[in-house]
Amino acid sequence: MANRKVAGPEIERLIQLLARLPGLGPRSARRAALHLIKKKDQLLVPLADAMGVAVEKVGVCSVCGTVDTSDPCTICCDDGRDPSLLVVVEDVADLWALERAGVLNARYHVLGGTLSPLDGIGPEDLNIASLVERVREGAIGEVILAVNATVEGQTTALYVTDQLAGLDVTVTRLAHGVPVGGELDHLDEGTLAQALKARTRF
Amino acid sequence: MANRKVAGPEIERLIQLLARLPGLGPRSARRAALHLIKKKDQLLVPLADAMGVAVEKVGVCSVCGTVDTSDPCTICCDDGRDPSLLVVVEDVADLWALERAGVLNARYHVLGGTLSPLDGIGPEDLNIASLVERVREGAIGEVILAVNATVEGQTTALYVTDQLAGLDVTVTRLAHGVPVGGELDHLDEGTLAQALKARTRF
Repeated sequence: MANRKVAGPEIERLIQLLARLPGLGPRSARRAALHLIKKKDQLLVPLADAMGVAVEKVGVCSVCGTVDTSDPCTICCDDGRDPSLLVVVEDVADLWALERAGVLNARYHVLGGTLSPLDGIGPEDLNIASLVERVREGAIGEVILAVNATVEGQTTALYVTDQLAGLDVTVTRLAHGVPVGGELDHLDEGTLAQALKARTRF
Repeated sequence: MANRKVAGPEIERLIQLLARLPGLGPRSARRAALHLIKKKDQLLVPLADAMGVAVEKVGVCSVCGTVDTSDPCTICCDDGRDPSLLVVVEDVADLWALERAGVLNARYHVLGGTLSPLDGIGPEDLNIASLVERVREGAIGEVILAVNATVEGQTTALYVTDQLAGLDVTVTRLAHGVPVGGELDHLDEGTLAQALKARTRF
């Protein structure tokens, strides 16, 4: 459909917008659009509705910074969670990943990115002040910095630790080491060094 | 998000519906949903609108069987196309693929599938009667059967040819052979045999 029109502009527009979703390229966006059009009642109509609802209802939680259809969010309102444990993540996707692991019963704080002076992202662009405020209120005993093991993530973790210094809270970070199921042969030297340094008794 | 709720049911539903798109699994559907929510004004709102328009406007062309926002479709209404050349395809996706190749200036007829007795798909389930009717009207000089080179596709092509027998029309099919850029080493024996049989002077 490079040059000549094979369908109305509305279908072209749908394809172009679908192609902007992560994981879909121009080719798979066309397939997706065609699939949607063919499954109009089973898929296109409900998906259009679900997106309309999302447009209307989804917002950012004013407490922790995650996205949800209620404010405060489902997690912040969940009384079954340990109020003394706060997990700091870079992004909502990280929060979802940790929840899938299902080993924590904590609340979260979403920074919304990492410090990146080159991209002009400073502390005031991240939800760091609100984190300090939450910790200052006193109910939190431990802050787990669950940031990515990247240079930016670790820099941000250092800065956050610095900001929390002096407050009555324990700051911890995720362990580095060999991923479960990982083969030593395929791991980088940095990971192997960390895994050796932090070795534990068998 | 297997067990505990991390967000309202509206977000879960959006993820589940996105996961039903071809090319997106559960994991990439979550990424897509998050991307949509974060890019609310730039992506979620326009995509929801585009889907709403598609729900309202998209239908099947009563002449050729493709999908479009107008009936007859953009192609059937395009006076610049050769009215004597009709390309028969299995699916709208095949029509789009041929148009991308950009070498034809023809009209199309979408069968809507292939004959498949095991799946209970007979001639009456495909747009074959309407094809015969179009050809019988007399303006079409050549019918190109651009069906897939599968058993079902070829069976369907044979059946269609049979139905068109006796009408004043030339029926042709796509050439079989080595795909452009293809390496002989990676091709199956059937393709090689066809490529040899249909060899041409260099």
